[in-house]
Amino acid sequence: MTFKFLGFAGSLRKNSYNRAALRAAQGLTPPEAALEIYDLASIPLYNDDIREKGYPPEVQDFRDKITAADAIVMATPEYNYSISGILKNAIDWASRPPGPPLQKKPVAIIGATQGLWGTVKAQFHLRQMCVFLDLWPLNKPEVLIAQAQNKFDAAGNLTDEMTKKVIAELMTNLVTWTKKVSG
Amino acid sequence: MTFKFLGFAGSLRKNSYNRAALRAAQGLTPPEAALEIYDLASIPLYNDDIREKGYPPEVQDFRDKITAADAIVMATPEYNYSISGILKNAIDWASRPPGPPLQKKPVAIIGATQGLWGTVKAQFHLRQMCVFLDLWPLNKPEVLIAQAQNKFDAAGNLTDEMTKKVIAELMTNLVTWTKKVSG
Amino acid sequence: MTFKFLGFAGSLRKNSYNRAALRAAQGLTPPEAALEIYDLASIPLYNDDIREKGYPPEVQDFRDKITAADAIVMATPEYNYSISGILKNAIDWASRPPGPPLQKKPVAIIGATQGLWGTVKAQFHLRQMCVFLDLWPLNKPEVLIAQAQNKFDAAGNLTDEMTKKVIAELMTNLVTWTKKVSG
Amino acid sequence: MTFKFLGFAGSLRKNSYNRAALRAAQGLTPPEAALEIYDLASIPLYNDDIREKGYPPEVQDFRDKITAADAIVMATPEYNYSISGILKNAIDWASRPPGPPLQKKPVAIIGATQGLWGTVKAQFHLRQMCVFLDLWPLNKPEVLIAQAQNKFDAAGNLTDEMTKKVIAELMTNLVTWTKKVSG
Repeated sequence: MTFKFLGFAGSLRKNSYNRAALRAAQGLTPPEAALEIYDLASIPLYNDDIREKGYPPEVQDFRDKITAADAIVMATPEYNYSISGILKNAIDWASRPPGPPLQKKPVAIIGATQGLWGTVKAQFHLRQMCVFLDLWPLNKPEVLIAQAQNKFDAAGNLTDEMTKKVIAELMTNLVTWTKKVSG
Repeated sequence: MTFKFLGFAGSLRKNSYNRAALRAAQGLTPPEAALEIYDLASIPLYNDDIREKGYPPEVQDFRDKITAADAIVMATPEYNYSISGILKNAIDWASRPPGPPLQKKPVAIIGATQGLWGTVKAQFHLRQMCVFLDLWPLNKPEVLIAQAQNKFDAAGNLTDEMTKKVIAELMTNLVTWTKKVSG
Repeated sequence: MTFKFLGFAGSLRKNSYNRAALRAAQGLTPPEAALEIYDLASIPLYNDDIREKGYPPEVQDFRDKITAADAIVMATPEYNYSISGILKNAIDWASRPPGPPLQKKPVAIIGATQGLWGTVKAQFHLRQMCVFLDLWPLNKPEVLIAQAQNKFDAAGNLTDEMTKKVIAELMTNLVTWTKKVSG
Repeated sequence: MTFKFLGFAGSLRKNSYNRAALRAAQGLTPPEAALEIYDLASIPLYNDDIREKGYPPEVQDFRDKITAADAIVMATPEYNYSISGILKNAIDWASRPPGPPLQKKPVAIIGATQGLWGTVKAQFHLRQMCVFLDLWPLNKPEVLIAQAQNKFDAAGNLTDEMTKKVIAELMTNLVTWTKKVSG
């Protein structure tokens, strides 16, 4: 059996480093698991009045993918010392009943930025959300990709060896952690 | 001269208690100021590729309103132990150059929830964002409207006297704080 | 085999509700585990110059007890929206090499206060520390004992049935979580 | 008139970089203010039973110095992703009635570490405490002295020009902010 991991990134920008980091993680996932990447571009703005009438089809699809996953990988930029509105909006849709889909799953967190200071403040906001959601984030490694423009090539391929190593470690730890805490 | 305050709420729900709390704040603002409420429903999902081509007209309008304001009032629900994606998405648009509009302004924070535990965790995420944005939030009073369904009537009018008092205190403090830190 | 749990409270006050909550937790721990309570009164103020010469005997004893434990229970008051200096000081001693003792262990968190608002802000600071320490705190239940003076009798016995129930659930979950994540 | 600033550092280590940073700040304070440094070594562990009988003389002295100050400068290491127990313990003593001394004062925050990642997580815990205490921390500049061992000489003198510049900016901003928000 192969674990199903679902990943999504909190940026809609075509050349987003967080999306690029997820693609890199895909290639660095151990054979016991497969990482599918979900694009948040089609997820509309959260509105509880709409939710009560029924989830829009794109949202339902996103929720179904999460429900089917054994573990989650989130990649987040840091905007204004927190996660992006894009990522928060997607989490808000995925946290509502029935289910909710986002619960009792292992989580790996990645953050990429062009700045010097990683995305550590955004990641701690995300970790606080995980307590409410009853998700189980990995503590280590904390993947803080600073100065991302120097670590990916123009086509969005991760070229920095240190960053490859730490993402590979993250994905390996996610497999181990998933075996431990699931089932 | 009258201070211009601009308020917005992090929920699109028609009967949102946070929108209702903002309307209550409008009526409880001292005569030295006037609170205009901005509806975030028309603000699209943030996309940096779009931003680079020019702000969409609705976003430009929102940014202009913020720039013209002497102080900001934000009302936030707590979703997943943080502010809503709706509110974060609006902040993300308002935090980009030129300007940015959201900087060096006094801020008052309100939070309403149907639950028992106020919105204290969301408000602290918002305060962290204010450090990056160089905004000046009031420390006191912390307006945590728990069990909001018992404090507003069916038409969304605030009926709870204690809550009226604390919102009036907040708006009075915002006038005093604005005099102090501005100009 | 019986799991060894070690508990300590962040208050030195003789009639501390957090110490009382730990004693209650002792009685509510399932038979698969035994909770020993450690008194932090003898732990001196942290000084790195002293540490480099060797841990004081009281500190060494505290560290040894942690090392021998299968899981940790921390009870914290909320002072100034964070954990107490007493608790932080003890954690600082327990987080240094060799080892450190405080790592890769399950953790249960309790907070008691005489106020209305639990100790939720203190607990989230504690959870952030757990990421650095590579500890694994339970997400649920969050034990927030507000208005503690109404829930314990004059002798410090927990009398509130709801609180007993939630602490019993916490200790049961700690046994389950310890089985899952350890070894 | 000259503003009185009071500074204290959260480390008791003789060669603490945070104490050294405070001394540097002393020399970089504009002529409108004078920064006195208070040594926390004599502040005992907080115990509410002791407090109720009367503050120990060292604590009373610390509290009196804070009361007399126009603004506060805190320098904090980052231990376990938070401020040190030493600093938290001192804040706990200074936050109790009468007064309390620590309220309605401007605050400047400095953090020094030998590591790569500044002390940003500790500083945000400190900022959260400031909300409870009704203190007014400066937003900018955030003084994050990473790899401190390369920025001070063996005698503890700050030699790094960039760091001097940012501390000088902090102290200048503290004078401006004190003029604005006080009185």
